[in-house]
Amino acid sequence: MSAVGLREAGAALAAESARFAGLGWMRGTSGNLSMTLGRDPLRLAVTVSGVDKGELGADDVVVVDAAGAAVPDQPNPASRPSAEAGLHARIAEVSGAGAVVHVHMMAPVLAAQRWPDGVVLRDLEMLKGLGRGAHGDVMTVPVVPNSQDMSVLGAAFEAGFDPATPALIVARHGVYVWGEDLRQARHRTECLEWLLRFALETD
Amino acid sequence: MSAVGLREAGAALAAESARFAGLGWMRGTSGNLSMTLGRDPLRLAVTVSGVDKGELGADDVVVVDAAGAAVPDQPNPASRPSAEAGLHARIAEVSGAGAVVHVHMMAPVLAAQRWPDGVVLRDLEMLKGLGRGAHGDVMTVPVVPNSQDMSVLGAAFEAGFDPATPALIVARHGVYVWGEDLRQARHRTECLEWLLRFALETD
Amino acid sequence: MSAVGLREAGAALAAESARFAGLGWMRGTSGNLSMTLGRDPLRLAVTVSGVDKGELGADDVVVVDAAGAAVPDQPNPASRPSAEAGLHARIAEVSGAGAVVHVHMMAPVLAAQRWPDGVVLRDLEMLKGLGRGAHGDVMTVPVVPNSQDMSVLGAAFEAGFDPATPALIVARHGVYVWGEDLRQARHRTECLEWLLRFALETD
Amino acid sequence: MSAVGLREAGAALAAESARFAGLGWMRGTSGNLSMTLGRDPLRLAVTVSGVDKGELGADDVVVVDAAGAAVPDQPNPASRPSAEAGLHARIAEVSGAGAVVHVHMMAPVLAAQRWPDGVVLRDLEMLKGLGRGAHGDVMTVPVVPNSQDMSVLGAAFEAGFDPATPALIVARHGVYVWGEDLRQARHRTECLEWLLRFALETD
Repeated sequence: MSAVGLREAGAALAAESARFAGLGWMRGTSGNLSMTLGRDPLRLAVTVSGVDKGELGADDVVVVDAAGAAVPDQPNPASRPSAEAGLHARIAEVSGAGAVVHVHMMAPVLAAQRWPDGVVLRDLEMLKGLGRGAHGDVMTVPVVPNSQDMSVLGAAFEAGFDPATPALIVARHGVYVWGEDLRQARHRTECLEWLLRFALETD
Repeated sequence: MSAVGLREAGAALAAESARFAGLGWMRGTSGNLSMTLGRDPLRLAVTVSGVDKGELGADDVVVVDAAGAAVPDQPNPASRPSAEAGLHARIAEVSGAGAVVHVHMMAPVLAAQRWPDGVVLRDLEMLKGLGRGAHGDVMTVPVVPNSQDMSVLGAAFEAGFDPATPALIVARHGVYVWGEDLRQARHRTECLEWLLRFALETD
Repeated sequence: MSAVGLREAGAALAAESARFAGLGWMRGTSGNLSMTLGRDPLRLAVTVSGVDKGELGADDVVVVDAAGAAVPDQPNPASRPSAEAGLHARIAEVSGAGAVVHVHMMAPVLAAQRWPDGVVLRDLEMLKGLGRGAHGDVMTVPVVPNSQDMSVLGAAFEAGFDPATPALIVARHGVYVWGEDLRQARHRTECLEWLLRFALETD
Repeated sequence: MSAVGLREAGAALAAESARFAGLGWMRGTSGNLSMTLGRDPLRLAVTVSGVDKGELGADDVVVVDAAGAAVPDQPNPASRPSAEAGLHARIAEVSGAGAVVHVHMMAPVLAAQRWPDGVVLRDLEMLKGLGRGAHGDVMTVPVVPNSQDMSVLGAAFEAGFDPATPALIVARHGVYVWGEDLRQARHRTECLEWLLRFALETD
């Protein structure tokens, strides 16, 4: 990936991050977003760690490999990816996603407390926003326990992976949502939040 | 309708859509807005489908007929109207509305779960914002089951239509609100949201 | 009052209205704000009726007398004051306020449902924002039934008036808050909203 | 401290204040922010009292000593610090903080009502935003009764001070959060708010 191409990816990631931060879904320096840059070998552009997600610039991005480690040959080799980059990479690899959103929204974390074995959603128009049917199509959003070990989280994700369900809740932590590109991942994130609030309010 | 006139309508629809999106009432790409362009035959300008409603431009609009189908002779013939354009058209035809707002606000969907036979509102000052009386005037907002078939939804709407009640809740989906023009439809949408939140909070 | 002076008042009222509208406290075209222009005879500048309170200009203001009626000799004689201008004038007259805010916030209306005989607040730091003590000073915010007759509302206000309590809740309607000037009325409105939410959440 | 240096501090404090005001955490003129300017003797730059915290300028700042009193030799000697400056100074002295945030968020005040002996948080990823562990690390946020006497509040703070817990809730009042600099104090404030809302919602 050229420096120019990475800057473009970084600018897109920064804009989306600022949007999510404005919604209160990336409090503190929490959360991270990624775009898939290439698949052979797997390369992702991930937002840098420890920075306010409402204030990222186009250079606040780092290229990681399939293990979530920063690759040596890149424009920003000194930037530090979040440990969570490893889960981004696993999700991108398994699902084929072009973009992964990880945010600390409240609704999925509350839903995981209420339904620790998975959150069942059905018969709601907003399900169409996640590529599902509005009638009779049951979507169970998987919930996995929190961990600091991305290989543990990655294995839990993969064990419960359903290609038709582009989301994963990490209990007492946050949510991962993915899509073909950043725009679709954003839309799915927004729709999932709506669905989970509805589920919590009507339980 | 000339291309210039349609652009003006498109710009107005885009501005209102961005406003609703900012309120969180058009998550993902959900919802759509329309303006009545003519009545003989019925023609509506409807926001295009599948696009973020906070990012519409003046050209993201399509002209539809009384069935909600895109008419062939128009500036944006390739644009795709939402299937829901059919319900917009039916509402515009039956009610005489100059503008119809369809948004995925949470309050009406929660209210429909609580009161599936219709939401009764009375003795609230905010009812004046929907053209009703603040004292002793009972407004029942109809609730219809969700469907992907606009003729089914349209028939359910028409069966419960009361000219004094410019709103329709589609259960597990969202709400339609209409008025003489976009501005009035916006104001009624906002007031209805307030009323439904009040009803839910005080139930 | 000169046209220039009234424009300045109108600009200040428009700016404050836009602020409250942005907080969601003036949905539709609801609510109105006023400034006292003179006391002998009483003259108030009041925001015009029927207009989106987030979109007022400096000329969207009308001068009213002690009865809330538009005075004939003024820069905007054709503008229509809200009927509620009569209550603004009564409040300004009785309390000596320099500015009155009337908004349709949800918290006071919910509080009036819960405590129809008045909302008791005490031992909260935020009471200082309304000129009260943070310890042992009991403030009871009066609640009066809604009415379309401003002389009825005015009499109810006056019957319960306490110079140390710059607020009045109209049940199933909204709230009036006043102060020496618009800035102080704003601050008191914000603090009251906080206090009422606290009261509702901890009841 | 030179006038230029204080203006820079004032500008930073004003920007952070506006940010918190926009979140609704500094209603009315409530709350105040400070930066440590020097330690021998202790000097803090504190936002001025009685002003809307969304409208501060770079000069709306005053230099105080270890008792929270304005020092005579400073660029803005006529500015009035809040009485709460005394608690800022005590916190900065005891904790070594470079910045202290005091805001009137609702969540900590509600949490203090629910858990007057301290709010226990554990096993939540967001704890990392306050420098704590996400697993098995128990953080108890101290709660002290409200007082207008800063030496009483300061003594209560110091009695419960744990260097690993950069926050203090004042019951029926608000919260203090601190960090190495304003940015870190902001991030910790945001994360604490999330944690307290989670605790309240899942109790």
